[in-house]
Amino acid sequence: MKIKIYTTGGTIDKIYFDQKSDYQVGDPQAKEVLEKANVVLNYEVESIMRKDSLDLTDGDREQIRAKVESASSESIVITHGTDTMVETAKVLESIASKTIILTGSMYPAQFQNSDAVFNIGCAVTAAQILEPGVYIAMNGRIFDPHHVRKNVELNKFEEIM
Amino acid sequence: MKIKIYTTGGTIDKIYFDQKSDYQVGDPQAKEVLEKANVVLNYEVESIMRKDSLDLTDGDREQIRAKVESASSESIVITHGTDTMVETAKVLESIASKTIILTGSMYPAQFQNSDAVFNIGCAVTAAQILEPGVYIAMNGRIFDPHHVRKNVELNKFEEIM
Amino acid sequence: MKIKIYTTGGTIDKIYFDQKSDYQVGDPQAKEVLEKANVVLNYEVESIMRKDSLDLTDGDREQIRAKVESASSESIVITHGTDTMVETAKVLESIASKTIILTGSMYPAQFQNSDAVFNIGCAVTAAQILEPGVYIAMNGRIFDPHHVRKNVELNKFEEIM
Amino acid sequence: MKIKIYTTGGTIDKIYFDQKSDYQVGDPQAKEVLEKANVVLNYEVESIMRKDSLDLTDGDREQIRAKVESASSESIVITHGTDTMVETAKVLESIASKTIILTGSMYPAQFQNSDAVFNIGCAVTAAQILEPGVYIAMNGRIFDPHHVRKNVELNKFEEIM
Repeated sequence: MKIKIYTTGGTIDKIYFDQKSDYQVGDPQAKEVLEKANVVLNYEVESIMRKDSLDLTDGDREQIRAKVESASSESIVITHGTDTMVETAKVLESIASKTIILTGSMYPAQFQNSDAVFNIGCAVTAAQILEPGVYIAMNGRIFDPHHVRKNVELNKFEEIM
Repeated sequence: MKIKIYTTGGTIDKIYFDQKSDYQVGDPQAKEVLEKANVVLNYEVESIMRKDSLDLTDGDREQIRAKVESASSESIVITHGTDTMVETAKVLESIASKTIILTGSMYPAQFQNSDAVFNIGCAVTAAQILEPGVYIAMNGRIFDPHHVRKNVELNKFEEIM
Repeated sequence: MKIKIYTTGGTIDKIYFDQKSDYQVGDPQAKEVLEKANVVLNYEVESIMRKDSLDLTDGDREQIRAKVESASSESIVITHGTDTMVETAKVLESIASKTIILTGSMYPAQFQNSDAVFNIGCAVTAAQILEPGVYIAMNGRIFDPHHVRKNVELNKFEEIM
Repeated sequence: MKIKIYTTGGTIDKIYFDQKSDYQVGDPQAKEVLEKANVVLNYEVESIMRKDSLDLTDGDREQIRAKVESASSESIVITHGTDTMVETAKVLESIASKTIILTGSMYPAQFQNSDAVFNIGCAVTAAQILEPGVYIAMNGRIFDPHHVRKNVELNKFEEIM
């Protein structure tokens, strides 16, 4: 089984650029996370874009959808900003026969106490086990995109009716 | 769903004691890992023992088995030393109706580049998804205890016939 | 000997606020750094302001100067943004009988590979050894404020004539 | 000014070897610490030995002394185990015209909350400022080898009469 990991940007990939006195999306972090985790998986990481998810357009989401649909792998993980992860998840639902897990993190992977590594572990595991469909892996749980929202105040994803 | 996490020791919980010029099993690390991961799970961590898995006896394994069997939860994660994780997994197979995931790490959770956080993410996810049975979650994959061994030279778990 | 540490903000204290999708000056990091370093020093940390050093006004610099001058301690460390650290250093030169060390970092203390901890170690040591005067401790060296500038492209402080 | 850094082993360089279920002195950590600290110093790191300081013999100390005495640099830092750092410092006192700073750490540099980086910052700064002589840089302070001891219970170095 080969897992294809697509990165789209988001907080998980944000790094600090001192010259700009700012914090911007940098190189995809998923690759380094998986290397350090010493996984025995057959996987490949590909960057589609480097955007804050609040800046994703319909065109961007279609680009992500087309990429995922054309992937030879049936197990997909997408690292994505948390703000509009649910929207992108819904756009991907039309894809058949693939298990697609979206994840991200509230703190950059480069931070000392980031949730990035834990979340990527969850997503990669879910991608190997779950039946075809689209799921969100955040805060240690697996959510149905139609029954989850990001609670911005609490910084957590939560189930909704 | 409530997840019960039992800790038994192993490298994952090893910390450095300068006074002893040595490296020994200390407080269970799983609790701190889950707190930092900001999970929305309902879970409880309980320490059964603090042993290097090479030092586990049949009596210790029976103690672990009895604890797991009597747990009210049906989703169990056990952090354990990697050297004899497979042996303990086989002892637990007689337990019915519970999804039991064993995991650990090659480097202590306290190390900067440890696989501990990633592995706990994998295990906690598998515990919520898999059908009842006993599994090993290491190196990003889920293994059947009867078809896995620890490759000591490569520091990885691998599938065997 | 008691060391007084004043914090003014800067990159060293920047943390990520997911709700704002932004990276802002947060709690002073010097206190936590010194606690983890297990120092046997007699010291006190006081926050004067939480500003990016590009936003410091003459009024702010006067506030810092007045605070330092009135300190009972003769050994002072100031954590400060790197962009205008030299300007603030020059304003402090009129203060007699105190050893004043300014430091900061190019990456936030909260980052995994930050220079913050190293730089605070340098500054705290220089504050105990150097003769009264104002100095800049960055990139492992001690600089005279009149003979140093921040090289933005290289992200380093360098000596100038 | 060029700083010569000699490494001799000790806790600062201890890493975990899973295959040995043990914690042993590995590659010198000082080099990586200085690279991450982004220093503008002219320095060189050389490993003399990789020993726990409790295992150092008179022959080992003479080897260290000979190395330091023959160094072309006048600013020397030695990373060393904390248990017998004072003994080695006293052996080096016969060396003229060099500023020699011994440091180490209570926790390995590879640990998440190690004092290693802070201590190396202190030592490297002291090596550039202090008058020729031998000093110990631990816990944020500079000590005279004749007036310091390691307090094992508290895990700190303290001044003595």
